Amino acid sequence: MIELLRSDATVRSALDATRDTVDLDADLARVVWSVLAEPGDGVAGSLIAELGVVDALSVACDPRDGGLVASNRAVSEGRSRWGTRADPRRVIDAISAARDVGARLVLPGDREWPPAIDDLGVHAPTLLWVRGDRALLSAEPRVAIVGARAASGYGEMLAADFAGDLAAGGAVIVSGGAYGIDGAAHRAALSVEGKTIAFLAGGVDRAYPQGHQHLLRRIADTGAVVSEVPCGTAPTKWRFLSRNRLIAALSQATVVVEAGWRSGSLNTAGHAAALGRPLGAVPGPVTSAASAGCHRLLREYDARCVTTSAEIRELWGVVGGAADAAPRPDADQVRLGDALSVRASFSVVELSRRSGLAPERISSLLGIWELEGRVRRDERGWRRESDTDTRR
Amino acid sequence: MIELLRSDATVRSALDATRDTVDLDADLARVVWSVLAEPGDGVAGSLIAELGVVDALSVACDPRDGGLVASNRAVSEGRSRWGTRADPRRVIDAISAARDVGARLVLPGDREWPPAIDDLGVHAPTLLWVRGDRALLSAEPRVAIVGARAASGYGEMLAADFAGDLAAGGAVIVSGGAYGIDGAAHRAALSVEGKTIAFLAGGVDRAYPQGHQHLLRRIADTGAVVSEVPCGTAPTKWRFLSRNRLIAALSQATVVVEAGWRSGSLNTAGHAAALGRPLGAVPGPVTSAASAGCHRLLREYDARCVTTSAEIRELWGVVGGAADAAPRPDADQVRLGDALSVRASFSVVELSRRSGLAPERISSLLGIWELEGRVRRDERGWRRESDTDTRR
Repeated sequence: MIELLRSDATVRSALDATRDTVDLDADLARVVWSVLAEPGDGVAGSLIAELGVVDALSVACDPRDGGLVASNRAVSEGRSRWGTRADPRRVIDAISAARDVGARLVLPGDREWPPAIDDLGVHAPTLLWVRGDRALLSAEPRVAIVGARAASGYGEMLAADFAGDLAAGGAVIVSGGAYGIDGAAHRAALSVEGKTIAFLAGGVDRAYPQGHQHLLRRIADTGAVVSEVPCGTAPTKWRFLSRNRLIAALSQATVVVEAGWRSGSLNTAGHAAALGRPLGAVPGPVTSAASAGCHRLLREYDARCVTTSAEIRELWGVVGGAADAAPRPDADQVRLGDALSVRASFSVVELSRRSGLAPERISSLLGIWELEGRVRRDERGWRRESDTDTRR
Repeated sequence: MIELLRSDATVRSALDATRDTVDLDADLARVVWSVLAEPGDGVAGSLIAELGVVDALSVACDPRDGGLVASNRAVSEGRSRWGTRADPRRVIDAISAARDVGARLVLPGDREWPPAIDDLGVHAPTLLWVRGDRALLSAEPRVAIVGARAASGYGEMLAADFAGDLAAGGAVIVSGGAYGIDGAAHRAALSVEGKTIAFLAGGVDRAYPQGHQHLLRRIADTGAVVSEVPCGTAPTKWRFLSRNRLIAALSQATVVVEAGWRSGSLNTAGHAAALGRPLGAVPGPVTSAASAGCHRLLREYDARCVTTSAEIRELWGVVGGAADAAPRPDADQVRLGDALSVRASFSVVELSRRSGLAPERISSLLGIWELEGRVRRDERGWRRESDTDTRR
């Protein structure tokens, strides 16, 4: 197949348009692989890891090279499924369509290839098609803000709050371009002139969902729209699930803002957890079906409960100032505070009876509090100053 | 002090009224201790554990017994604080008031004494005053449903839902008798004719808050109103905090339904966690101040996120039927489901191209699905039956 494609003028010029420098055989072989195999095909991934991308393709397509195939049932089954797609026309169409929309081809080994994606091992994509800024793929920090399509106003508001705040602080917002939470996150990032990446389940040449055509164009203008499947490929349930692993792998942390009990976002979360990436879930009313998946993540996936963008930043290690820095009174102070009154004065012995503290301890605390202006002494004993709360 | 009290006729008859069988010295000594020491006084607890309750009291009160005191600074300080309360009148008043409201005295060693409370060690109460059914203290299971006084409608509704459902299932609902979440939980338990225990921070002879006078009387009628402090004692901040440890210790699990960022319920939760008792927190909108403490418990205390009464039951080990028992399709089924259509038929090779699955795998899946009536074959190939969703 490679021989046939490398001599095709359309292919060569289209490839030139999508790459800075072309390594014809290797680049073509990756594009062919992306046409033959569905996302995450571990047999294809293993074969490529073992033989290199060009030789792996020979094994996959060439009927003469039967040695390895005969000895390996998985490869033999792989050939069977890849075979029905081994049509040069599909490859030519994919590259041409990519060129037509100005997509760029990013391959392992490229400066723009994000090493984080390689954590997927044999399930890593063979390539990425990018419309927009390829450099964003390795900009930091990258945080996934994902969630339900059928989001509530509560969820969309929070997604926008978090994404806007994080993007304004320099984070790249990664999401799936869908209606609901994803869209709110992308839009908020754009609205603060921040950076955002949309991973699509279909080809980057087609806007999905259609209603996000304008949004995806805006993302491509200043951020990046990315996919591992060839142009012309329709999004399917399987490809959505596979696409989710890319969102999880690329992002240094994943936050699910809202998700139904069986939401696809749980799948993204599962990938993040499996990859050891920090996972956050935003709680919501237990009466809201749109939060049921988030609560499930808290219960079953050991997700971290996050309620502010500062808490989201903590997921990748940025710890803000302690929100609870006010000094805490010790037990004796609480008890003496209980015993004092603003309306009546008590002697030290009376305060001892009321609080159960020793008179010596009370005298010592009262001495400090008097200096601080929290209590005052009169002829009958001690009383609390009206504008202080010694009990806090 | 004991000598003086044991010869007092009022004391003897009052004690008779509050006990099934009286061990005069020991019972009196415990009542005296509860008058002298504030709740949770670890020095008093240690002294009692070491010497027994009667001899410990001699050390605490008798100026002649100076050996131990001189050698132990903590005991010496203890004497100083206990001393201001060493007034027989206080003891007589406490027992008389208890008798007047029909309270019963439950002591360590009694059949009704809950062993769970002893997990508090030297901070365990020296006694419990109970209005109502003493046997409830050791009935099982016991679950604490607690939370903010300043609860929202959302929180009160959930507290009532959970407490009602758990109480109807036989659980004893333990709470603090306060406005808000506590009151909603108690009321719901009563409304299903379930059992409930209210732990008070003040004496059981005074209703606190006053607005819950009627509620607390109803609780005493069929459940139990309990306190470790003598009758006549006012509730103070310190005593609320101390009371919380009893709720946590008595309950096999503690659930916080709503709590502000600094809510006293977090203190109850902290005790539960410190005692190794399962701790649940109910999530809510992150925009609700009344849920901020619950989210804090999820983040900082490793509380379990609970959203239903079934999930609360799981805290003490009752696991219900799996809510997610529907069989999950494997990856190949998802992909074949994606490739099929209800509107058009596809050949096996076409399905292979569309799904990326091998033709053999497709034929085998289609054979099963045909038997199940999920697909049918026509002259052009295979199509999905309209009323099935093979993708689920």
